[in-house]
Amino acid sequence: MESGSHHATSDERADAGRVAAGPARGLVCRGCGAEYPLVAQHACFECFGPLEVSYDPAALARVTRADIEAGPHNIWRYAPLLPAGQDPAGRITLDPGLTPLVAATGLAAELGIHAPLWVKDDSANPTHSFKDRVVSVALTAARGLGFTRFACASTGNLANSVAAHAARAGVPSIVFIPADLEPGKVITTAVYGGDLVAIDGSYDDVNRLCGELVETDEFEDTAFVNVNVRPYYAEGSKTLGYEVAEQLGWRIPAQVVVPMASGELLTKIDKAFSELVEIGLATAPDGGWTVFGAQSTGCNPIATALHAGTDTVTPVRPTGIAKSLNIGDPAAGLYALEAVRRTGGWMDHADDDEIRAGIRLLARTTGVFAETAGGVTVAVLRKLVESGRLDPTRETVVYNTGEGLKTIDAVAGQVGPSHRVKASLRAVRDAGLLG
Amino acid sequence: MESGSHHATSDERADAGRVAAGPARGLVCRGCGAEYPLVAQHACFECFGPLEVSYDPAALARVTRADIEAGPHNIWRYAPLLPAGQDPAGRITLDPGLTPLVAATGLAAELGIHAPLWVKDDSANPTHSFKDRVVSVALTAARGLGFTRFACASTGNLANSVAAHAARAGVPSIVFIPADLEPGKVITTAVYGGDLVAIDGSYDDVNRLCGELVETDEFEDTAFVNVNVRPYYAEGSKTLGYEVAEQLGWRIPAQVVVPMASGELLTKIDKAFSELVEIGLATAPDGGWTVFGAQSTGCNPIATALHAGTDTVTPVRPTGIAKSLNIGDPAAGLYALEAVRRTGGWMDHADDDEIRAGIRLLARTTGVFAETAGGVTVAVLRKLVESGRLDPTRETVVYNTGEGLKTIDAVAGQVGPSHRVKASLRAVRDAGLLG
Ligand SMILES: Cc1ncc(COP(=O)(O)O)c(C=O)c1O
Ligand SMILES: Cc1ncc(COP(=O)(O)O)c(C=O)c1O
Ligand SMILES: [Zn+2]
Ligand SMILES: [Zn+2]
Repeated sequence: MESGSHHATSDERADAGRVAAGPARGLVCRGCGAEYPLVAQHACFECFGPLEVSYDPAALARVTRADIEAGPHNIWRYAPLLPAGQDPAGRITLDPGLTPLVAATGLAAELGIHAPLWVKDDSANPTHSFKDRVVSVALTAARGLGFTRFACASTGNLANSVAAHAARAGVPSIVFIPADLEPGKVITTAVYGGDLVAIDGSYDDVNRLCGELVETDEFEDTAFVNVNVRPYYAEGSKTLGYEVAEQLGWRIPAQVVVPMASGELLTKIDKAFSELVEIGLATAPDGGWTVFGAQSTGCNPIATALHAGTDTVTPVRPTGIAKSLNIGDPAAGLYALEAVRRTGGWMDHADDDEIRAGIRLLARTTGVFAETAGGVTVAVLRKLVESGRLDPTRETVVYNTGEGLKTIDAVAGQVGPSHRVKASLRAVRDAGLLG
Repeated sequence: MESGSHHATSDERADAGRVAAGPARGLVCRGCGAEYPLVAQHACFECFGPLEVSYDPAALARVTRADIEAGPHNIWRYAPLLPAGQDPAGRITLDPGLTPLVAATGLAAELGIHAPLWVKDDSANPTHSFKDRVVSVALTAARGLGFTRFACASTGNLANSVAAHAARAGVPSIVFIPADLEPGKVITTAVYGGDLVAIDGSYDDVNRLCGELVETDEFEDTAFVNVNVRPYYAEGSKTLGYEVAEQLGWRIPAQVVVPMASGELLTKIDKAFSELVEIGLATAPDGGWTVFGAQSTGCNPIATALHAGTDTVTPVRPTGIAKSLNIGDPAAGLYALEAVRRTGGWMDHADDDEIRAGIRLLARTTGVFAETAGGVTVAVLRKLVESGRLDPTRETVVYNTGEGLKTIDAVAGQVGPSHRVKASLRAVRDAGLLG
């Protein structure tokens, strides 16, 4: 017979991760507004538009700063604002979040920014990208919905994160990636021991394939974090907005610069700011905040649409070293355009040489070694200052969403030992190191 | 004219990092007990023994759990127990520490451990190794002592950390490494833009050279974190003991397994436990704690001395993939032997194949991807259970001190995609992925 305390634990487990337990009320179509219950569905039956989690406004309004500040030192402090994870025992998580907000005074000086400049360094997450946030929320929701296998289509970081989460939880996983990803993404996924399927094709091909697989009987038990449970997944990115506001003393920064692949992250940071202001947890800057988007020149369909003044995001065939951002047909492109236009922002893109220079500039001035996506964002920050689109007198946060060690080949040809000498004082002297 | 608050800040800065401001009282020789003031010196003038920081027992005894728990979420919460960093404005730091203590139930089950097993995952630090702890303490002391350039001799992780700290602080750095380190260590150091000197030779050659350089006029302004400010550096490792005790609810674990290069980390974890018990902050387990040391078979001088029952650590010429542990002439070998013998522990070593298996075992069962040093530690944990040296019924903490991405070649030949298929449902079916 089980002990009382043991019983309590299994009751907790039975209750764990039930999507209905939190502030979420349902799913709503971003296109036509049709409403759905909190199920595993990502597209509207009426118009095929993407579904988004909607919340009970009264439940959100009850959340206080003190509630959050009393929470754990990770994303789950924001559980009262998320669609899953209210019950700690039901979480599938590596406990990501509350990553450093680094004062980038040296970078500001070099770029001619005369206001506080911050780097939100999300390479500090357990698998070293912001994807741990979205995966923790998606898999916790998935568990509550009864799924017993975890999957994703990934440009690399999502793969790492899903495989690691599954290993920690002891749940099988199957991860789909384009075959040409960096070794730092492939090995770091494979080492966790789940299935890893390399597809001959682009991310967009992989994503289409997963959209078909999710409909098969064999994958009925499988949560694809960015397909059938995508609405929950997407909400995880809100925590990158909440945290920055809390770390600034419950203030929204005047300007943010955000990398874009699907465009989801950017729209959710903006959504987080709106929510915080709406429920009175944070104050908006005078004149409101402004959102800037960063893409790689090799894959810039959203920035291209903005520059052309259109709402039509024309898919591209991605190229270039910023592979984690290489989504040619971005699911949230339209919503990213909307957020940037509404807040008076702009988008720009950086080519491979500019990306490498961005990585090196950030490392040299802040001690943060970013992956190519971070190089894109810093390079675009520089362009936005130079073009006058970004106001150098307003407080700015630039998001570094990934880790330099995962894309080491991007800079391997450019940096290395400054000197190579024999192990003697004389050799060091001859090398000019003794003045 | 400056404002009042501005004045306050510059006063704080003038006071910053003064080594004398904390609980440290002086340096004491581990060999003959000779005492020295808190200066930049690492060897005894009398007997050439290594110097260690000594503390004012009354100052330590005044520290309470509440003081610590009210501190920041990083190593500086333990500033009242450290020789530097009491003044936040004087810190040279990336704010490392308070890394996850991961419950390793899957690993325990596979190894036949019937008690709580924890992985202290120090790959979560800013530059992804425990070295950020020692570097933050050393450089903060160095700044207080007036040094204006930062340096080190390194097997890789220390190099990464010193270069990143220097970049963040805007201070010049010069880092010395053996020329044959992994790309994941070399690039990650070079990217920060300081001087990086590759030496044709082993770490021990590099270390000897730095011992000569520190005596030259040209390096008078330079703090070598593990040479002239080594006593302060070494104390930083105590935080890996403090944190584990605090994370266990102010309990010392019954058994710890620690990787060894110089042996310093192991001795300082043991020292931290002793201090906490002495000042009444933590409780020791029944029968006391037991310390186990892990080396690579390619570089096992300390374990060899233990197995031979001698105090003479005979230097070796290191080989093998665990390069971060490849110190053939370990400075703290004698003290590591003392701690392991006193606590009834043991040491063992793992060869390259066992190290690779250790990395994969840890990843698969916990979602933590360790570098080769972590592979060594997990492989030795397995051996200690199998040989009966480690008690499988007592609570155990195994330290993962580094990140798998930095030594990715160690497993690159062993793990990869489990399948490679074309982007079609039919191809996926033919590959057997649809049952
Ligand atoms: C490091 C990194 N940054 C940013 C992004 C962009 O995310 P989103 O698809 O939400 O725009 C990704 C997506 O994979 C990423 O890996
Ligand atoms: C990852 C890692 N673990 C452990 C150690 C061992 O440290 P110590 O020299 O204090 O024994 C090192 C030393 O470089 C290291 O890099
Ligand atoms: Zn619709
Ligand atoms: Zn002495």
